[in-house]
Amino acid sequence: MRAVTYRDKLNFEPDYPDPKPGNGECLIRVRLAGICSTDLEITRGYMSFSGVLGHEMVGTVEQGPAKWMNKRVVGEINCVCRSCDMCQAGLSTHCRRRTVMGIAGRDGCFADFVVLPERNLHEVPDNVSDEEAVFVEPLAAAWQVVKQVPIDAGARVAVLGTGRLGLLVAQVINTFDCDLEAVGRNEHSMQLCEKRHIRTRRVDEVPLRNDRDVVVDCTGSPEGLQLALGLIRPRGTIVLKSTYAGGGQIDLTPLVVNEVTMVGSRCGPFGDAIQSLARKQIDVLPMISRSMKIEKAVEAFEAAADRKNVKVLLKVNP
Amino acid sequence: MRAVTYRDKLNFEPDYPDPKPGNGECLIRVRLAGICSTDLEITRGYMSFSGVLGHEMVGTVEQGPAKWMNKRVVGEINCVCRSCDMCQAGLSTHCRRRTVMGIAGRDGCFADFVVLPERNLHEVPDNVSDEEAVFVEPLAAAWQVVKQVPIDAGARVAVLGTGRLGLLVAQVINTFDCDLEAVGRNEHSMQLCEKRHIRTRRVDEVPLRNDRDVVVDCTGSPEGLQLALGLIRPRGTIVLKSTYAGGGQIDLTPLVVNEVTMVGSRCGPFGDAIQSLARKQIDVLPMISRSMKIEKAVEAFEAAADRKNVKVLLKVNP
Repeated sequence: MRAVTYRDKLNFEPDYPDPKPGNGECLIRVRLAGICSTDLEITRGYMSFSGVLGHEMVGTVEQGPAKWMNKRVVGEINCVCRSCDMCQAGLSTHCRRRTVMGIAGRDGCFADFVVLPERNLHEVPDNVSDEEAVFVEPLAAAWQVVKQVPIDAGARVAVLGTGRLGLLVAQVINTFDCDLEAVGRNEHSMQLCEKRHIRTRRVDEVPLRNDRDVVVDCTGSPEGLQLALGLIRPRGTIVLKSTYAGGGQIDLTPLVVNEVTMVGSRCGPFGDAIQSLARKQIDVLPMISRSMKIEKAVEAFEAAADRKNVKVLLKVNP
Repeated sequence: MRAVTYRDKLNFEPDYPDPKPGNGECLIRVRLAGICSTDLEITRGYMSFSGVLGHEMVGTVEQGPAKWMNKRVVGEINCVCRSCDMCQAGLSTHCRRRTVMGIAGRDGCFADFVVLPERNLHEVPDNVSDEEAVFVEPLAAAWQVVKQVPIDAGARVAVLGTGRLGLLVAQVINTFDCDLEAVGRNEHSMQLCEKRHIRTRRVDEVPLRNDRDVVVDCTGSPEGLQLALGLIRPRGTIVLKSTYAGGGQIDLTPLVVNEVTMVGSRCGPFGDAIQSLARKQIDVLPMISRSMKIEKAVEAFEAAADRKNVKVLLKVNP
């Protein structure tokens, strides 16, 4: 099969071996896949991953239990043991023995086929298109923010970063009754916010008044976190949404002095993401900057790394 | 009066002007004062403070409302406006216009006299000695940890750092039914823990298994926080207890991946601190390494910076 792999460098491989589904697993023919910042980080060494990349996809089940055959599906990315202390405590996304599609110990979805456990799958409703469904995984991660940190009525909230993830997080938070501002530097992304009636502000124009109840940092940069510490009110909550390989110089003194709570946030609920797309609460289509054939994957990764593009999709079997 | 000041350098001044109490304020003759890590940080430039140092003391009221005259007191360090949004929200330790004794905008207690608002004072019970009472301020900061993060029965808790603050935090947490371990490198401090029936482990022998429910970082170093991120379980809580001027290189990726909560923690409840001393739940006396006359303050600061000493006290008017 065709596959996009990372082994010290990014490759398009025209003849990668087909995966074989094990017990309780399904073979999915990938229709459309999305390139995310984590994919880009992996090509810079994050997670020391080697294999087929990709964890955002919509596809059709080709092998597996009868109830799933020919269904259009999206898939949760953590493949878990169901027996470790984390799984037993209901925290299976933190399974001690997990593999993660295209990120850790398991091939991903930038390929003709991908294998996932049956229990990871969610059927896509008919009124959600492939172009929308491919956003379910990152949109679920955006919904995770409000699962971890409730948004009170009237809360003053800032989302930092108007990239791929920031635009989703801002839209999710905008479904709540609150005073939201998206802080970014990319004109085009900020226009997408304004179209969704989300107030925006340029990063160099935001006053550091320690007056926000909740700040969600989607910048993936130490500068973003430092800005968050200047915006958050005493006893407020910062949600740290993106990882950045390598770390950085951060002065956490304001976190102690202002008794700020900082919450790390990762994968989220697929159900909420699918529902919000089906109900047209969230509009992902304007975020698609380019859709490129899987054969052009190396070029597509370059496009995804270019800040003037928001989302770059890979057409696999559209 | 005699005073220990910081103006670009640390000085003992034999003839500093006496402070004058304003409306609603008391003049306190300082009996005993304690040197804390924050004082040491200020002498390295933290807070850009200039004036009389010191915020841990026990003293006797010499001027003020009749009900306080000749009372032996300790004093909360934040002097607040009672009208800003934080004060109105009941978060007066975060008052937007606060001054802080010996730390920000207000002279401290390393002097014959210090002035504090009447409402900042707490009377010291007869069965709490001066040598115990001088620990009330840092002990209150230790109690703040369990006010912010409840310690569940059986919780696996690690306190990192067995210095001045770590020893207090460990003792406070040890009053709860939990599985506590103090992690340090100083033999003497760790012996103090063992005497209080607190299990200890050397920092270089602690396995990074991400299996603690709560980790309290009292190290005041980026290395301490990095260790905390290796000890805390997914969805666990790190309490960041000490500030360190200048920041440091920290990789927060594990915070995001493990969805860890990090809580900054500062000043705490004087009432709990005084009560726990009166009830002899907390034993601070073995922590006193040296007691030196205020005239020897420069030498006392050097002693406080020496890791083989735990607490260094200044005898002012003992």
